[in-house]
Amino acid sequence: MLPGSSIGQRLVLTSFGESHGNAIGAVLDGCPAGLEIDEKEIQKMLNLRKPGQNLISTQRKEGDIVEIISGVFRGYTTGAPITMMIWNSDQKSKDYETLKTKLRPGHSDYPAMIKYNHFNDYRGGGRFSGRLTATHVMGGAIARKLLKVTLGIETNSYTVQIGKVEMEREFSEKMISSIYKNEVRCPENKTAKMMRDSILDARKKGDSLGGIIESVTTNVPVGLGEPIFGSLESDLSKAIFSIPSVKGIEFGSGFRGSELHGSENNDLYTIKKGKIVTKTNNSGGILGGISNGMPITMRIAFKPASSIAQKQSTVDIKTKKITTLQVKGRHDPCVVPRAPPVVDSLVALTLADHALLAGTIKPIL
Amino acid sequence: MLPGSSIGQRLVLTSFGESHGNAIGAVLDGCPAGLEIDEKEIQKMLNLRKPGQNLISTQRKEGDIVEIISGVFRGYTTGAPITMMIWNSDQKSKDYETLKTKLRPGHSDYPAMIKYNHFNDYRGGGRFSGRLTATHVMGGAIARKLLKVTLGIETNSYTVQIGKVEMEREFSEKMISSIYKNEVRCPENKTAKMMRDSILDARKKGDSLGGIIESVTTNVPVGLGEPIFGSLESDLSKAIFSIPSVKGIEFGSGFRGSELHGSENNDLYTIKKGKIVTKTNNSGGILGGISNGMPITMRIAFKPASSIAQKQSTVDIKTKKITTLQVKGRHDPCVVPRAPPVVDSLVALTLADHALLAGTIKPIL
Amino acid sequence: MLPGSSIGQRLVLTSFGESHGNAIGAVLDGCPAGLEIDEKEIQKMLNLRKPGQNLISTQRKEGDIVEIISGVFRGYTTGAPITMMIWNSDQKSKDYETLKTKLRPGHSDYPAMIKYNHFNDYRGGGRFSGRLTATHVMGGAIARKLLKVTLGIETNSYTVQIGKVEMEREFSEKMISSIYKNEVRCPENKTAKMMRDSILDARKKGDSLGGIIESVTTNVPVGLGEPIFGSLESDLSKAIFSIPSVKGIEFGSGFRGSELHGSENNDLYTIKKGKIVTKTNNSGGILGGISNGMPITMRIAFKPASSIAQKQSTVDIKTKKITTLQVKGRHDPCVVPRAPPVVDSLVALTLADHALLAGTIKPIL
Amino acid sequence: MLPGSSIGQRLVLTSFGESHGNAIGAVLDGCPAGLEIDEKEIQKMLNLRKPGQNLISTQRKEGDIVEIISGVFRGYTTGAPITMMIWNSDQKSKDYETLKTKLRPGHSDYPAMIKYNHFNDYRGGGRFSGRLTATHVMGGAIARKLLKVTLGIETNSYTVQIGKVEMEREFSEKMISSIYKNEVRCPENKTAKMMRDSILDARKKGDSLGGIIESVTTNVPVGLGEPIFGSLESDLSKAIFSIPSVKGIEFGSGFRGSELHGSENNDLYTIKKGKIVTKTNNSGGILGGISNGMPITMRIAFKPASSIAQKQSTVDIKTKKITTLQVKGRHDPCVVPRAPPVVDSLVALTLADHALLAGTIKPIL
Repeated sequence: MLPGSSIGQRLVLTSFGESHGNAIGAVLDGCPAGLEIDEKEIQKMLNLRKPGQNLISTQRKEGDIVEIISGVFRGYTTGAPITMMIWNSDQKSKDYETLKTKLRPGHSDYPAMIKYNHFNDYRGGGRFSGRLTATHVMGGAIARKLLKVTLGIETNSYTVQIGKVEMEREFSEKMISSIYKNEVRCPENKTAKMMRDSILDARKKGDSLGGIIESVTTNVPVGLGEPIFGSLESDLSKAIFSIPSVKGIEFGSGFRGSELHGSENNDLYTIKKGKIVTKTNNSGGILGGISNGMPITMRIAFKPASSIAQKQSTVDIKTKKITTLQVKGRHDPCVVPRAPPVVDSLVALTLADHALLAGTIKPIL
Repeated sequence: MLPGSSIGQRLVLTSFGESHGNAIGAVLDGCPAGLEIDEKEIQKMLNLRKPGQNLISTQRKEGDIVEIISGVFRGYTTGAPITMMIWNSDQKSKDYETLKTKLRPGHSDYPAMIKYNHFNDYRGGGRFSGRLTATHVMGGAIARKLLKVTLGIETNSYTVQIGKVEMEREFSEKMISSIYKNEVRCPENKTAKMMRDSILDARKKGDSLGGIIESVTTNVPVGLGEPIFGSLESDLSKAIFSIPSVKGIEFGSGFRGSELHGSENNDLYTIKKGKIVTKTNNSGGILGGISNGMPITMRIAFKPASSIAQKQSTVDIKTKKITTLQVKGRHDPCVVPRAPPVVDSLVALTLADHALLAGTIKPIL
Repeated sequence: MLPGSSIGQRLVLTSFGESHGNAIGAVLDGCPAGLEIDEKEIQKMLNLRKPGQNLISTQRKEGDIVEIISGVFRGYTTGAPITMMIWNSDQKSKDYETLKTKLRPGHSDYPAMIKYNHFNDYRGGGRFSGRLTATHVMGGAIARKLLKVTLGIETNSYTVQIGKVEMEREFSEKMISSIYKNEVRCPENKTAKMMRDSILDARKKGDSLGGIIESVTTNVPVGLGEPIFGSLESDLSKAIFSIPSVKGIEFGSGFRGSELHGSENNDLYTIKKGKIVTKTNNSGGILGGISNGMPITMRIAFKPASSIAQKQSTVDIKTKKITTLQVKGRHDPCVVPRAPPVVDSLVALTLADHALLAGTIKPIL
Repeated sequence: MLPGSSIGQRLVLTSFGESHGNAIGAVLDGCPAGLEIDEKEIQKMLNLRKPGQNLISTQRKEGDIVEIISGVFRGYTTGAPITMMIWNSDQKSKDYETLKTKLRPGHSDYPAMIKYNHFNDYRGGGRFSGRLTATHVMGGAIARKLLKVTLGIETNSYTVQIGKVEMEREFSEKMISSIYKNEVRCPENKTAKMMRDSILDARKKGDSLGGIIESVTTNVPVGLGEPIFGSLESDLSKAIFSIPSVKGIEFGSGFRGSELHGSENNDLYTIKKGKIVTKTNNSGGILGGISNGMPITMRIAFKPASSIAQKQSTVDIKTKKITTLQVKGRHDPCVVPRAPPVVDSLVALTLADHALLAGTIKPIL
């Protein structure tokens, strides 16, 4: 399989489309037959990612209405590839024509032009646009349901940091219901307000902000993942780095754990309600690349959005001269609040893939 | 392709063997015909990873002598799969028999037993052992040479942090020659001494330490990587997380970049000696998942080694009772100093794979 | 990669859709950037496969109008996945409702019901319908153009046998222009007439006929194909057997060659116009799985169409009782005349895949 | 996954080595944990393929002693990749030095030289040698056992034609025990004698003969195979064409079926002992690419061996002049009698792969 447009071994998501083309779409192959599918559930998850939801995201309005093209018959999956599409609208491609030769700092423009010898569709980032993460969500909504229905697995993510504003407490399961109570997707309402203010402040200055998303997945059975190159960390990170703007990932105690002694970082085994568990979860639920039954936890670093309204110095690739540019168009001052459904989707796709590989989920439900 | 034993699309490394089995080995498929191969060069890189090199690593002595089995004829690659093997020796499997049912904290023992229904080879971690990273180095030594010979690409890595001891200055190309001048593989000699002391101190206490490796790759052509699921960050992280003990990775400004504004983190383009470059390198040489010609930089978090001499509380999986265990055998108090050749190998394998995919390296040299 | 919906390593075709669903479609990933694409060329090839063209094919009318959804920008491929769709129309799904439990002999109904636990879309064969070969043609039209433009490779196929009526002479390049001069796609007009008569005769009797297609590809460079599991015969046959009704394939002298002595079957080398060629071509242009520069030739056996108007004895899967059925609907009395564009497509996709793998075609044109 | 050295999606066989290198070997990845492995069983199947068994095969003596390197612990598979090797011996590479530039008709010499720019190991055919089919048998012996133990599937093959001598009766299950009673592997003893005579006659004339192998697999569950590109015919033919000398394959009525009417070729359903079966088996047990529970039958055409003792006209690639050559060395006058264990291996590997994909065999036994 060619890298790039597809991910997964047994549950394979293929993404197609460009930001300003006719449509974007996803083909999900390998989903077991017999899963009940409700277009509204997919739409609901798409809506949480959709731009233009509020003041802190881009003012671009996109319907992002999903349409199921194949693989579902009378409300159930058939075992055939499930194709889903969103027709593009509200594209203002003209905004981009003037930028055709001026390289936008932080964007893929320059390497893309060289890689494809200027044949790439540059409008709105084309194939590299964050818009394509909607294809992850289409596939992810189904994978998430599959995990929930068959194994009771729940995956959730939320904002723990925007710029320098961090969540105060550690996340606990009770907070799940609070995640979507604010625009920032931070389960601490007070912190969310401060995060919102810093985003609006950046926006006012024609600037942008980065942040950190945390992901927690519970009820994972013991034994998912393959030793060495198919470790859960390998496959989860591969999936997560498909999100534009992600520049770092850590599992469990991660970078902080590097500063500890083994006696501090090792999670000691004990028995709880007859089950083998660990007292702490510094491993993030993964040992030797395999799930150990504890919650899978990870933290994901997003860089500040590259499109800013401020004037920036750059190079014109045609003239090879230094010049300045001001990125117009309607952009997110911070993409982090729109990321949780995308992260949940990629986590679900990866775990469902491994659950099918390990025989934990059966090909027919 | 099944995840687990193989990695790569066009240059595929398949790893086989177990820590205390007959042998470990690597099959490297897809290497272009016509590359000159010297067994001694592979051996040299293996020696830098080998245990028992000095006081700060395990006292286990393993010859780790590579033997080329196929794919090389009269000193040159033939285009056929290159098989390399190391026969195991100095195994003290008896050390492990007593631990057959007591779960070692931080190790894969528990999930592996469940995953394989107790059929797994548990001796020395079996398939999950860090020893298997020698198979990465066998393949990596060839990939690294391929990159160097065909494109002039150089990849190096070094220790920047052990426990809480950090390097003082930023790494610069001049430091490359200093990396292997000390046992810790830190290019700052003074810092290396402090790191060494903290490792010996942990060892004395029957404890272990973690740390951080930094990797820098120069002369990378523009355009390697595939949009979305084949981003360089996706494929590099997938490869790097195949190293046991790795729990985090970041590219360029990474987690630190999440706290910045776009105006601070964006790398502005300029012209230098007629070439388009960026003034800073917060992107770590990767934009939209594609190389932009700047050095590819990443930082990798290693947890403290799980095998410690201290007595630890744990569970006996047979009796399902809480018990204590003391891990015997000869273990590394810190695996970080042995990691640079492994990191270099995985970086080289990933970049060579992408260079072949992109047509930047030709199938026949 | 999951088998089933996708084929190829470097040029990957993913097929989606069902016979009576909303649409069928193809995603072609890995096509180099810079290839000029004209929707009309794809349409032309689709029209040659389309049902309802004349008396000897099914009277079902399907527009089969291709729509390019992604991957083409201003008339050229961009390097991104190319998605093409055909919206379904003229479906008479009611025809199939009565057959929901009666197993049609020769069709996939029975194994499909068991495999998918009755969740499969059974209308018109669903995912198993010959209609899906239109997705092969969409991708194949592009692959065929890619081969022609970059390497001058030409692939053609034609009918050499219908039932017991065979072509009289051996095919020669001059006959290419005669292939599409009749409805049967046989370059001998007189034979074509006899073939047509035997199809119409079968039709009148409520019966169907099989036949044999021959495929010839010229200007193939030496060196395509990979030893052992990636032999050209392996990959061509895998592709060709994706066509419903195909039950046999042979390369060069094939089954006939099994009866010969080595001294008769070996193709002797000679020099012609300064080039190394063979005097005969019993190998069908493939030695050791690798192209040797001679025309690649194969013969493909199609079984008679399974849908016949005659009353047949069968089993009702619900009652598990023996019953009779009469397949209604509008069916092809012989699918062979519609097969050449499908065969050409699969041959082109396979050879283009190998030409990209071997570096013979570059990722950017 | 790169084509060439590996086959399979869920059960992956990787082959390595060359005819006259140090060793040949197989890595079988994805075999479930818990399968009992006896080296002797693998050896027994290798012995049936081994050269030098009798007068009608090459007089080269090769020990072909299998050695298990990894993946088996205390007699059972562990879930880790199983590596098996055969060390080469009795190589007379000097026989080949004189042929370095003279192209042997019917062999891969010419395309291999061009493909690998003369870096290929040409001794004894190198990577292209029929000797590599021993790696298929190593993996196949395990796959065959896995199918037998878990699903009761039995796969057998036998010689039905040598040159123009054909078996008289149709094969029936009772004949299985007669297959290995003679050197030709034909279950009809009288026919076997005639086949033997024709091989010895060809040998005396410095010539060779081809033939046809038939394969029958019983107890196959309904539902193996994937629609379209993962059809059983696609994957079986891909595997079978990895055998050098194979130039044709047909399933069920195959080429003969192309001459029939649908009413003759359709297999009518009926009930037998409470099970749904078909009255005839013209489909060869495969409908729509999926197993229907009937025996899977195929016929495989082998060309006459290319190495013949007679003087042949050819070209010297260095001088580009016409010359003659006489292939020395010890060669098979007919490879067909050594093929049945290879065919059985590839059938078993393909069906086991599909049974694991479909969840019919579980990852842990």
